[in-house]
Amino acid sequence: MSLALFEKHCEKLEQAVDAALKRDYWSGYKEMPSPRVYGETAQDDGIKAFQSHLGKNFEIDQPTNGEWIGAEDGPFGVELNVKYPAPDVDAMMAAAKAAVPAWRKVGPQARAGVCMEILERLNAKSFELAFSVMHTTGQAFMMAFQAGGAHAQDRGLEAVVYGFEEMTRAPETANWVKPQGKHDPLEMTKKFTAVGRGVALMVGCATFPTWNGYPGLFASLVTGNAVIVKPHPRAVLPLALTVRVIREVLSEVGMDPNLVCLAVDTLDAPITKEFALHKDTKIIDFTGSSEFGNWLEDNAKQAQVYTEKAGVNAIIIDDFDDVKGLSRNLSFTFSLYSGQMCTTPQNVFIPKGGIDVNGENMSFDDVAKAIAGGVEKFLSVPERAVEVLGAIQNPAILDRMEDAKKLGEVVLDTTEIDHPMFKGVKCHTPVMIKIDGADVEKYSEEQFGPIVFLIATEDTNDSIAKMSQTISENGAITLGLYSKHESVIEDVEEAALEAGVNLSINLTGGVFVNQSAAFSDFHATGANPAANAALTDSNFVSGRFRVMQSRR
Amino acid sequence: MSLALFEKHCEKLEQAVDAALKRDYWSGYKEMPSPRVYGETAQDDGIKAFQSHLGKNFEIDQPTNGEWIGAEDGPFGVELNVKYPAPDVDAMMAAAKAAVPAWRKVGPQARAGVCMEILERLNAKSFELAFSVMHTTGQAFMMAFQAGGAHAQDRGLEAVVYGFEEMTRAPETANWVKPQGKHDPLEMTKKFTAVGRGVALMVGCATFPTWNGYPGLFASLVTGNAVIVKPHPRAVLPLALTVRVIREVLSEVGMDPNLVCLAVDTLDAPITKEFALHKDTKIIDFTGSSEFGNWLEDNAKQAQVYTEKAGVNAIIIDDFDDVKGLSRNLSFTFSLYSGQMCTTPQNVFIPKGGIDVNGENMSFDDVAKAIAGGVEKFLSVPERAVEVLGAIQNPAILDRMEDAKKLGEVVLDTTEIDHPMFKGVKCHTPVMIKIDGADVEKYSEEQFGPIVFLIATEDTNDSIAKMSQTISENGAITLGLYSKHESVIEDVEEAALEAGVNLSINLTGGVFVNQSAAFSDFHATGANPAANAALTDSNFVSGRFRVMQSRR
Repeated sequence: MSLALFEKHCEKLEQAVDAALKRDYWSGYKEMPSPRVYGETAQDDGIKAFQSHLGKNFEIDQPTNGEWIGAEDGPFGVELNVKYPAPDVDAMMAAAKAAVPAWRKVGPQARAGVCMEILERLNAKSFELAFSVMHTTGQAFMMAFQAGGAHAQDRGLEAVVYGFEEMTRAPETANWVKPQGKHDPLEMTKKFTAVGRGVALMVGCATFPTWNGYPGLFASLVTGNAVIVKPHPRAVLPLALTVRVIREVLSEVGMDPNLVCLAVDTLDAPITKEFALHKDTKIIDFTGSSEFGNWLEDNAKQAQVYTEKAGVNAIIIDDFDDVKGLSRNLSFTFSLYSGQMCTTPQNVFIPKGGIDVNGENMSFDDVAKAIAGGVEKFLSVPERAVEVLGAIQNPAILDRMEDAKKLGEVVLDTTEIDHPMFKGVKCHTPVMIKIDGADVEKYSEEQFGPIVFLIATEDTNDSIAKMSQTISENGAITLGLYSKHESVIEDVEEAALEAGVNLSINLTGGVFVNQSAAFSDFHATGANPAANAALTDSNFVSGRFRVMQSRR
Repeated sequence: MSLALFEKHCEKLEQAVDAALKRDYWSGYKEMPSPRVYGETAQDDGIKAFQSHLGKNFEIDQPTNGEWIGAEDGPFGVELNVKYPAPDVDAMMAAAKAAVPAWRKVGPQARAGVCMEILERLNAKSFELAFSVMHTTGQAFMMAFQAGGAHAQDRGLEAVVYGFEEMTRAPETANWVKPQGKHDPLEMTKKFTAVGRGVALMVGCATFPTWNGYPGLFASLVTGNAVIVKPHPRAVLPLALTVRVIREVLSEVGMDPNLVCLAVDTLDAPITKEFALHKDTKIIDFTGSSEFGNWLEDNAKQAQVYTEKAGVNAIIIDDFDDVKGLSRNLSFTFSLYSGQMCTTPQNVFIPKGGIDVNGENMSFDDVAKAIAGGVEKFLSVPERAVEVLGAIQNPAILDRMEDAKKLGEVVLDTTEIDHPMFKGVKCHTPVMIKIDGADVEKYSEEQFGPIVFLIATEDTNDSIAKMSQTISENGAITLGLYSKHESVIEDVEEAALEAGVNLSINLTGGVFVNQSAAFSDFHATGANPAANAALTDSNFVSGRFRVMQSRR
């Protein structure tokens, strides 16, 4: 394979490498769905492209058992009814494995070039991907476009960058000359080759199929592996489109497209375990429940397993003057995608004696009211509210919200908003429940969805202790703190290091605790039960290949 | 802690970083036991220092249950009779864990400086360490000095280099400024902190306590972890001396010396499992049997586990002209330390129809005779032979040699050599056995010790196939090839990449397949059952810490 694609994308790759090192702001793809960026007809074309899949068989020429399956609900009421070819597990694994040696031989540069070309093509399909993310996950359009498009592409590019850097850290060749005093030196020429592990399995999630899927997918691909993409049965289309683009590019550059295959299953007949335990599956990326993530870690012993699981994200509220800013910031955080983000905080620790605000005591109930009132106000205009809330992805969440109300005093009840655009679809505002800090068992596990616990602790030290306990035991991806005391900030920073969680401090503006930016923020730490890896650092990619040496 | 030690060693660290990147020849410590390098009295001082430990209690002030234990055999007949304080497991784990936060806070530079100071102090004790390695492992003096001293220190330094590089890859701080069109940009200051996993366990081996132990020990230490050093009961003293030096340096710089503790046990009452399964043990490094290595991988689920286990290293002999060079090179390889290296080849694949040598056929038996004759000649002078062979570390090896003889035709029998210096000690030359290539079960597992199988294959393609099969199934750290055909070299290179083993080609001079040089050669690949990691690459260190982020 020529290095034409590497050369085409080389400048961007260099910028991305530089950004990942400096970790200041950089993005490879435009996050605004603007006609100036994506073209005047891009949005209409994207809608049409999305609609063209509905009710059809999604053609993809790969090893199949001949059946057509698929049962994606449309959370916004749009019937998808797309059918995908069901995989023949052994045939698909064999085909993917057979494609690996040629992919190894082209080398890191060519692989990085191909991956970047794929990402560019995905970026050009951002509207089509956005509508497919929206109508499978329930994300509102803007979020689907950003998180499902440019931000996911950035996370994919980030994985390419780290993979490329790691593979090229050892030189391709070295000349080793060891002096021997008066004698001739010993001389050896050495060759170093990055060799992928084999076949990787990427298990997608229902809420962020691309954002959470691309890091593992591209990390495995760039480091020389084949990838079986196994979407969540509720959110197949975004990854099916992704796989199709990948296979197109692979074919164009003369690679076997079976290097990347789509493995669709249904909730009734799951196949993940079969792929996960296959002897040739050497890498697994998973985002989803702790139960299945832990099962993979314990059982798929032949593979490197990277998991992102449940957690109990937290906010600690200490003395703080800008309660308005706090409330405004948290209102967006709790409302965004109806709290269905793996980064949405669940546990808000507030001293039961209240906090100091500009020299005056603000009681626990007043703090709680300020936050609840902020959410209420923020979601008071339905047209605006639904564009933040999106739809509930899984009906089980509604039951969970009802159950949560029984745990304590309801400070803010959830309300239903009729979606103005999608008839019959109801959006749901967050429920907020006051809980006594001593009742740790009530809030120590994740209640996924728009459920917020306002937890009355003895004081901020107790808040820190309860945060540390729950996160050490059950994990977290995010922790937020509001405090005007540098000493408290230091204590919480220290506690966050010990608990292994990333910390955001005093967010009152346009940055939110549940958002992380590629090339600057690490997503998860790998240091607590919520995840065994971070997106994306060198450790996330370096186990996906090994360096072999030949010397003579 | 000041950065004085970092500044003191900064220049050497920079050189080492550069060497690890270029992978050309570089060494941080002098491998020749020369008075000009180590001082006129260094050897005598080393002997005296070694002797001063014999028959004594090895004082080390750490959590103990009050007993004094130890039962090191001296393979050269020197009674060690050193007693060490037996650990109190829980108290030692607690003490080590308590020492971690302060060690984290000093930061990567200070930790690297401390580690390099430790290595410099160990280097100054190279003779004392050499005699302690020699009289516990059975290595002859020169090997004990080189592999147990400078080379081990180089491998430790290499781990420090990779750990330092990985920890400092993310900047300590970043300023993130995201443009917002006409509005003010979003701004965040971010802090990144490398946080060790906690307490690491390093389980030493009986043959190379320092060389195989230092990489994991220093990789864990530099990345901010405490380390429990658990030597093999047969080879305690070299690691006990190492721990004492580490604790001295830690105390001098104001760190809690319990950051690194010595955990001694005996063959009769092993304690490794207790440490390995302790909830606070987050990292384990192990060199030894596949059985125990696999047990650790399967059972110590709370820890990152790095293992180096058994394997079936191989040599493939194809058409080759310089049979004399081949024979000379392999004679040293098979003889060195009586084949008790994890890198010593066991399986020598030779076509049963013989090979082409300078246009003439050399039969299988003649090739076998040439190799056997080379070994015989090389070991014909006892005074010289014992300085290569050293002593047998574990009497079980002698039984294994007898059993191996029953597997096929003995081409070269082992002989006993009375050690001229150590009365009553017998050294043992390698045994070579001819085996039919079809009898894979006879040579598919490791027979640790000076046992060489000369395997008659159908042809070189069959040799490659048998090598691939045995190494894929049971692992290997080294593979050697002798061939004058570039096409065969390419085929074996390809097969080595697939089998996941490092390859050495046509070694006839002063470089041997069983030796690997720090900063240039990767030891093991982590891609076959002989090891799940390589010494040392970024993947070996990057899982030992996580980066935590704080942003505001």
